[in-house]
Amino acid sequence: MSVKVALAQINVTVGDLSGNARKIIEAGRQAHAAGAQVLLTPEFGLCGYPPEDLLLRPAFMEACEQALQEIAAALADCTGLRVVVGHPHHGAVGHDLRTRSLSVPSRFNAASVLAGGQVLQTYCKRELPNYQVFDERRYFRSGRDAGLDAVVFEAGGVRFGLCICEDAWFAEPACAAKAAGAQVLCVLNASPFHLGKAEEREISMAERARDVGLPLLYTHLVGGQDEVVFDGASFALDARGVLQARAPMFEEALSLVEIDVGAGTVHGALAPLPELEAQCWSALVLGVRDYVGKNGFPGALIGLSGGIDSALVLAIAVDALGADKVRAVMMPSPYTADISWIDARDMAERLGVRYDEKSILPMFEAFNQSLAEEFAGLPLDATEENIQARIRGTLLMALSNKFGSIVLTTGNKSEMATGYCTLYGDMAGGFAVIKDVAKTLVFQLARWKNRQPTRRADGSVGPVIPERIITRPPSAELRPDQKDQDSLPPYEVLDAILARYMEDDQSIADIIAAGYSQADVERVTRLIKINEYKRRQAPVGIRITHRAFGRDWRYPITSKFRA
Amino acid sequence: MSVKVALAQINVTVGDLSGNARKIIEAGRQAHAAGAQVLLTPEFGLCGYPPEDLLLRPAFMEACEQALQEIAAALADCTGLRVVVGHPHHGAVGHDLRTRSLSVPSRFNAASVLAGGQVLQTYCKRELPNYQVFDERRYFRSGRDAGLDAVVFEAGGVRFGLCICEDAWFAEPACAAKAAGAQVLCVLNASPFHLGKAEEREISMAERARDVGLPLLYTHLVGGQDEVVFDGASFALDARGVLQARAPMFEEALSLVEIDVGAGTVHGALAPLPELEAQCWSALVLGVRDYVGKNGFPGALIGLSGGIDSALVLAIAVDALGADKVRAVMMPSPYTADISWIDARDMAERLGVRYDEKSILPMFEAFNQSLAEEFAGLPLDATEENIQARIRGTLLMALSNKFGSIVLTTGNKSEMATGYCTLYGDMAGGFAVIKDVAKTLVFQLARWKNRQPTRRADGSVGPVIPERIITRPPSAELRPDQKDQDSLPPYEVLDAILARYMEDDQSIADIIAAGYSQADVERVTRLIKINEYKRRQAPVGIRITHRAFGRDWRYPITSKFRA
Repeated sequence: MSVKVALAQINVTVGDLSGNARKIIEAGRQAHAAGAQVLLTPEFGLCGYPPEDLLLRPAFMEACEQALQEIAAALADCTGLRVVVGHPHHGAVGHDLRTRSLSVPSRFNAASVLAGGQVLQTYCKRELPNYQVFDERRYFRSGRDAGLDAVVFEAGGVRFGLCICEDAWFAEPACAAKAAGAQVLCVLNASPFHLGKAEEREISMAERARDVGLPLLYTHLVGGQDEVVFDGASFALDARGVLQARAPMFEEALSLVEIDVGAGTVHGALAPLPELEAQCWSALVLGVRDYVGKNGFPGALIGLSGGIDSALVLAIAVDALGADKVRAVMMPSPYTADISWIDARDMAERLGVRYDEKSILPMFEAFNQSLAEEFAGLPLDATEENIQARIRGTLLMALSNKFGSIVLTTGNKSEMATGYCTLYGDMAGGFAVIKDVAKTLVFQLARWKNRQPTRRADGSVGPVIPERIITRPPSAELRPDQKDQDSLPPYEVLDAILARYMEDDQSIADIIAAGYSQADVERVTRLIKINEYKRRQAPVGIRITHRAFGRDWRYPITSKFRA
Repeated sequence: MSVKVALAQINVTVGDLSGNARKIIEAGRQAHAAGAQVLLTPEFGLCGYPPEDLLLRPAFMEACEQALQEIAAALADCTGLRVVVGHPHHGAVGHDLRTRSLSVPSRFNAASVLAGGQVLQTYCKRELPNYQVFDERRYFRSGRDAGLDAVVFEAGGVRFGLCICEDAWFAEPACAAKAAGAQVLCVLNASPFHLGKAEEREISMAERARDVGLPLLYTHLVGGQDEVVFDGASFALDARGVLQARAPMFEEALSLVEIDVGAGTVHGALAPLPELEAQCWSALVLGVRDYVGKNGFPGALIGLSGGIDSALVLAIAVDALGADKVRAVMMPSPYTADISWIDARDMAERLGVRYDEKSILPMFEAFNQSLAEEFAGLPLDATEENIQARIRGTLLMALSNKFGSIVLTTGNKSEMATGYCTLYGDMAGGFAVIKDVAKTLVFQLARWKNRQPTRRADGSVGPVIPERIITRPPSAELRPDQKDQDSLPPYEVLDAILARYMEDDQSIADIIAAGYSQADVERVTRLIKINEYKRRQAPVGIRITHRAFGRDWRYPITSKFRA
């Protein structure tokens, strides 16, 4: 008995209920035309993920229920097609008024089976992640409270059981589905990307498929939503856990999978997983494209310094938006080396983006004069460096305010960690593209990008980042002969300590025991601690590691803990 | 049988384990000297609340356990004294390595009973709030998983049962304590202030006491921690739920309560609850004092405009820090009216704070010239207004960077809601004092403050805010003859819509049905929606309502939902 299932890997927008519904309806029509008996869409495909406190608005919940009915009605004529849609669901469980319905929500993270214009069945997610970037227990009750142990539906003579994302990382929901008669397991997902995540998912789901001895269909969102990026790569496993089909990463797809339950076979197209640098690049490109596009900006502005961070961001932005939507501005100071503007201009020419130079000197002199009396006799320090960065921030924001483009900031994770950046200066902007990319990975990605054949503005094919930008020692150029390494440990050391302390919660003692000097470890961890206030005012940016300075890093500013 | 209990209302600092332990030890010694048999300290008195992701660090958890042992040892010689300490506790429950110990934490929010140098018993909180500002299910397992239904200890011949905060808002934990033999209920709390919260707590706890028919002792933190303020007002109820003792609000206290279980009496000193404006004022003052003090700033800087918001913030800062620690800077532009600097100077003189004037004109001219070619032929708009605000932000930050004082921002909740403020301009600073105070409440507080007898710098007693600052129409003074009401609905309308939509999640239809015009409701709610990106980069500030733009407002920036 063979059945055809379509996995809809769609790029939806949080809160765009009618737009998202249209995508699902369109996928349903295509799936039906292709002879599929089931269309699987991702977790919260109806409303986007995560809708956060929109879920607390009764008007939002009502609009979601209505949009679900509209999808059912629109696909009523696709005879024989079952459509599985992920959506928030207001259940009949009573709630506690005292806490304004928050303490014991009667909301569920649900997946409904639609056919013949009706909502036939609704499954409610049982395992609610409340760690890392996830806050699901703020919003949802567990499906265990809904009184339905499993939801199984039939299509083409085959019985499908439903799980939603976290459910499938535990044994019990899949077992319950099998016990209820499921012959195929369907998992709807919204699983934010980080490096290695696609591989982790496939390994875990293979284990799940083997556990229950059922084929497993994993359907996933794709696209950027504020700081998270969904990477697609929906897949299908046979009952032995062997991968038989995979949708491409980082793009929309409708994947058709044919399952013969009797023969135990699963067939479909198998896209490769790109190498990690390529995944990372694509995540950054998609994150920028969707943040800019979904928020309706006409283009992007980047302050180019001649250094590697802004060069990398420029290359990403051009891949995301096209050269005609990106504008670079070089704002030299008296401390800017000639090679900085030579290289910046060179790169802008290679990419074919608009490039301008605006000296910050007149503003810098005006500020210095305004403060001269106050500061008389005091040594120059970070104050004067910050003024320069803030003039640049103000100039870029003025262009943004006047013409509408968003300012992309260029700070990397190592800088965000140590505070080697200026609040309201180089941190000023709407989206922090590489805030989760450590400096050593910045270099790695720049070299990777230069190895990819890229057509440049003059028609030639070659590297887009001038070699000297990658090889010269990093400098903020805010005082004479400044180098990053005057203020910070070497980046290989800094980034290794950062990963251990910040991403993996290792103690200072553990990190020293791993071979780092006490002085370096204490310096880096102290800098991480005292710069919490800066990060709290940083723009959002793309998460590419398993712990970014974003929703998954919640530290008090006021804190006296020193390990 | 009469027993004496001391309620320690202490102001602790997150992560300052040794400092907090010293406070508890000191309270223990005082309680013992006063003849108390029990010292009750607040929820997480050991580590401060909320420690947030510090809890994920094994080194932090170990340090907490060690500090707890140190308190036990230090108070070993207080014979006959039971000390109840709130602390995070690493239980013996196994955990799931897959999610880096986050999915199923083996951590508890606990209270331990110390005596004779030992930890005698440990109670684990059962009800974990995960709504509003609370994220406890990110960190803790419920005490139900710890296998102990209730913890009851004996002191002075009386049996005391333990609850922690949220526990006491539900019936079950108190019933379990009573079933286990408790004659008195002890509730340890960390319950962030909002207007009316003190009254709500007493009403709910009275119900709890009556339910179980036991006296109830409520011990609470006091002090500011980033955006929340704990207001103290610890209290004691008799078994009928009648209030018999209350510690003062907003200050540390050691309250002695005498309980005669046989006679059913509870005795202690009863401090009044101040009127709501006074509570609000004290919350703002304490919030500023603790943010500045606990983070080690030598003082505060405020950009004075001659308007009511900066005037209010200046008065709060002086009450919090003293006039000698506060400095006001007036930064006039060509659009600043004479009365603005006249009133600003007048107010600074009344309060005795250092006051300086710095024109922003030279910088404004330099920016305009730098952008003249780009902007040629285009009309003036918010761009030029923002440049002025950003010059002021840069000047204040330069003074902060050079001399170390923190910049206090002066934006109110109505501005934060509607985006009537400049990112990196007037929003630049470390702490947003009145970000949760709507404009109508700003006026109310200014009038209230002026009614309080206040000694001014010249020795006279009288209002500190010049009357004209309160009565003149609000203006940002960023273009000629600008008034707030040119861009926004009247503040009474704006604030009412804001409260309904933002604080209470009412729908647009509900608000219109309540009598507001569709145009106003759509305008205000649209402004709230499109300014999410600004708020995301705003400094933290003090929460005084049941919903602030902070931890309890988690909206996506990218969102297309329109109710």
